Amino acid sequence: MEVTENSVGAIDGPTNPMVTPLLTDLYQFTMAYAYWKAGKHQERAVFDLYFRKNPFGGEYTVFAGLEECIRFIANFRLTEDEINFIRESLPGSCEDGFFDYLRGIDCSDVELYAIPEGSVVFPKIPLLRVEGPIAVVQLLETPFVNLINYASLVSTNAARHRNVAGKSKTLLEFGLRRAQGPDGGLSASKYCYIGGFDATRGKSPLQLQASLYTFGYGSLDEIIDKSLSRKDGSSTCEDFVSLVQTWLNKIQWSSSLHGIFGETNQSELAAFISYALAFPDSFLALVDTYDVMRSGIPNFCAVALALQDLGYKAVGIRLDSGDLAYLSCEARKFFCSIEKEFAVPEFGKMAITASNDLNEETIDALNKQGHEVDAFGIGTYLVTCYAQAALGVVFKLVDINNQPRIKLSEDVSKVSIPCKKRSYRLYGKEGYPLVDIMTGENEPSPKVGERILCRHPFQESKRAYVVPQQVEELLRCYWPGNSDKRRETLPTLRDIRERCIQQLEQMRPDHMRRLNPTPYKVSVSAKLYDFIHFLWLNEAPVGELQ
Amino acid sequence: MEVTENSVGAIDGPTNPMVTPLLTDLYQFTMAYAYWKAGKHQERAVFDLYFRKNPFGGEYTVFAGLEECIRFIANFRLTEDEINFIRESLPGSCEDGFFDYLRGIDCSDVELYAIPEGSVVFPKIPLLRVEGPIAVVQLLETPFVNLINYASLVSTNAARHRNVAGKSKTLLEFGLRRAQGPDGGLSASKYCYIGGFDATRGKSPLQLQASLYTFGYGSLDEIIDKSLSRKDGSSTCEDFVSLVQTWLNKIQWSSSLHGIFGETNQSELAAFISYALAFPDSFLALVDTYDVMRSGIPNFCAVALALQDLGYKAVGIRLDSGDLAYLSCEARKFFCSIEKEFAVPEFGKMAITASNDLNEETIDALNKQGHEVDAFGIGTYLVTCYAQAALGVVFKLVDINNQPRIKLSEDVSKVSIPCKKRSYRLYGKEGYPLVDIMTGENEPSPKVGERILCRHPFQESKRAYVVPQQVEELLRCYWPGNSDKRRETLPTLRDIRERCIQQLEQMRPDHMRRLNPTPYKVSVSAKLYDFIHFLWLNEAPVGELQ
Repeated sequence: MEVTENSVGAIDGPTNPMVTPLLTDLYQFTMAYAYWKAGKHQERAVFDLYFRKNPFGGEYTVFAGLEECIRFIANFRLTEDEINFIRESLPGSCEDGFFDYLRGIDCSDVELYAIPEGSVVFPKIPLLRVEGPIAVVQLLETPFVNLINYASLVSTNAARHRNVAGKSKTLLEFGLRRAQGPDGGLSASKYCYIGGFDATRGKSPLQLQASLYTFGYGSLDEIIDKSLSRKDGSSTCEDFVSLVQTWLNKIQWSSSLHGIFGETNQSELAAFISYALAFPDSFLALVDTYDVMRSGIPNFCAVALALQDLGYKAVGIRLDSGDLAYLSCEARKFFCSIEKEFAVPEFGKMAITASNDLNEETIDALNKQGHEVDAFGIGTYLVTCYAQAALGVVFKLVDINNQPRIKLSEDVSKVSIPCKKRSYRLYGKEGYPLVDIMTGENEPSPKVGERILCRHPFQESKRAYVVPQQVEELLRCYWPGNSDKRRETLPTLRDIRERCIQQLEQMRPDHMRRLNPTPYKVSVSAKLYDFIHFLWLNEAPVGELQ
Repeated sequence: MEVTENSVGAIDGPTNPMVTPLLTDLYQFTMAYAYWKAGKHQERAVFDLYFRKNPFGGEYTVFAGLEECIRFIANFRLTEDEINFIRESLPGSCEDGFFDYLRGIDCSDVELYAIPEGSVVFPKIPLLRVEGPIAVVQLLETPFVNLINYASLVSTNAARHRNVAGKSKTLLEFGLRRAQGPDGGLSASKYCYIGGFDATRGKSPLQLQASLYTFGYGSLDEIIDKSLSRKDGSSTCEDFVSLVQTWLNKIQWSSSLHGIFGETNQSELAAFISYALAFPDSFLALVDTYDVMRSGIPNFCAVALALQDLGYKAVGIRLDSGDLAYLSCEARKFFCSIEKEFAVPEFGKMAITASNDLNEETIDALNKQGHEVDAFGIGTYLVTCYAQAALGVVFKLVDINNQPRIKLSEDVSKVSIPCKKRSYRLYGKEGYPLVDIMTGENEPSPKVGERILCRHPFQESKRAYVVPQQVEELLRCYWPGNSDKRRETLPTLRDIRERCIQQLEQMRPDHMRRLNPTPYKVSVSAKLYDFIHFLWLNEAPVGELQ
């Protein structure tokens, strides 16, 4: 993936050129006008971006999308065309001065603090804290929520698929054609990689073929150039087709495989041979077009053995239908028989890739049945996040002009946590994170070895003392604005992925399991707790029973 | 929306600049190489693009995404950078000639036939028929499927929401922030409009405000400039705040409303007043930040009545939480009381907009309870197609070198319908579409008044004679390639929407209902039926029971 920051520290724009300041709800501009008209547009506001509930019935979320937000903020300017568009969209009564104001805005006086991308994160803890003139920061709401919502959701989905598949399996993202639009497809690849997938679309195993290719062939006669030179170049086999046919015959009449199959499909064989002639060094065949065990696997083995004669090593097969557990085990047995019968070392280890509407549940079911699949190709369920198509990311005002703000709701889970805050992750003796805690901006930070009271933000009776063995401040400065803070450099995609994998491994296993995971604790300091409840009582109307 | 075809007939590229020939699975290029290496790349192939099952448990689908496919095909060329990328991704052994070949390809010898965008469509009937050199057409598979899958899914979702909401309601698309990436958000707006929504993001009612705006205010003192001139410019009210307060007092002590509310929230009142000062002619307030009936509605009415004094007309309110059925009815009663008490004509008709996790089910439930909502703002469930996040669009080879191809599967619903085909919609006496029928390319077309046998493609006993009163050929030529066919011009977005609405209205109502809809019939001609089954028996292996 490309480098984002060039040599002079400038940051490229968003990957998708459609991500502009107009990627917003127009009412954000309406509100900006109302603020401007009231002379309030420069008031300093602090917003938190967070989500309220982990997705997919789990107890963790992977945070992704930060780099795109920074690219956006770093290049935030309205062009003359954009300003004209806004002018045409707003009522004609809007004053010219507002458009002059828009012409001048950028994010040079906005500060953005964030948890590093790829971190494991939890509900209510701010992923971003954004400070700046209210009219400008509000224009960031829709793009930020859009950029983080899907990125975090699909990274989390990928991490969950990795969790169920296990570390040793190869995971391939196959979802482009089913994604919700081109961007959904392209960004899915990036964020699945962050969440622990092995291959992004740009790096997918190239030797894959589709059943379509098999249908392109009628018979072996269609193969014109039958020659293939040995891998070391020492000689050329003039009739690779005959070599394959010889092998097919040997397999059919071998003692351990005799009677398993009769005549295989010749169109399929022709397609496999032609594919092997094009990619002798990376041959991977889709074996389920006709009949896996009676045609696809024997045809594949004949081609693979012929390639072996010339010094090449086939990669393996792909199964895209049927009973994947059963077929993968039968295929493995077949490969092992070949290894033994013809003394071909490693042939039994031929890679078996499975695809076909796979998701967490089907992989879990395969694991329970027992299977011989080495690699999973996962599409629709992964990239569309079929099990839950959106993460409820919100962007809430928590302070304006140094006045904390709370958003009340009859639904307690929707009450916002007021104040400009800091957040910390506290680690226990065994190295696991124990709890995340939010404090007021100016409270002293938790100290290693010092007991601190962590309170549930809303439930009075839920609180616990913690003596942290390690304290990690979560928010870092990614965009200092006019402040003199140091700006964190943006990590590479590989580093983000590393962080994600390392953080997932560091979690206590009961938070991570698929069924009935234990919720990770999210808390506030005693002082912040008191302040929240003071403000709440102040704001909430006293009901009248009638 | 912009015009796609300029004066000399050239067609703009795809709306999203990320839609390039590299928006594909790399294995499409691998297969193209294998075809090229085998000398088969120029073989003429015919592909059908279709889906197998209507989404959302319904019996109809709206076809969308065609224009983007045409924009793509019209501009399909590989740049030198793209060719280099492909070269680096393929094995080093790939021959240079292939890259020279790629350098030269475009879609000038591809023909594309399609059902017009915005049409109501059904499973198995080709939405697109694409003909051309196999290696080139195959490179179109992934982008076409990607561009049509989500577009058709979200248009259908929009149409279903329109169906349940009824014609008289205003439907607003609110989903940008929850969409699966920026493109999901932008294209959702377009395709929801096609499916019958009233406002795309670019045309949303600008007067909307968010609760955030309310939180920007502390008290009435924060309003500095309190003056507002009359709409006709004849005079200026120097203290609009006092005028509002006077009205609030009048409402509170009016005979019919006395005792309903006490002191309203003053931050909210300040926010409403400041918003009305900015947009006196299009004031629409979010009334649920504190308490709808005891604060939001009285505050709104006071501002609306003050505006009325100066010749302006407020638009209405938005409810974003709580019991929308109950609150909308209570709000309506309040408005009607005001109309009566203060003799303000039309005040009772103030627009009530509802939003808050709305979907087909919740709107249906609101209808059953009874409500006074005039406009629905629908977000997450609409744009992410939460109820079903993908439509299973496929792209299948049906003919190569004039040899029909069939794709078999143990699952009959996955067997493809072979041959280069034509499709027709046959209409009955009452003007309803009765059945869609596919025939071979060279069969005579069904004739008005002539009896024709329509057969289920796979179930022998399902067949029916039809005497069509009207016959509509479904596939039209949108990209003639080198043929001398006339190219259909691309309709405007408004025309696509008109077609969609008109086609939805034309369907027999039992196909369209939400619960247990009747499936619309899809058939093949007797001749095509016989040919399918001849080919099927020819291809299918005869099993052996062991």
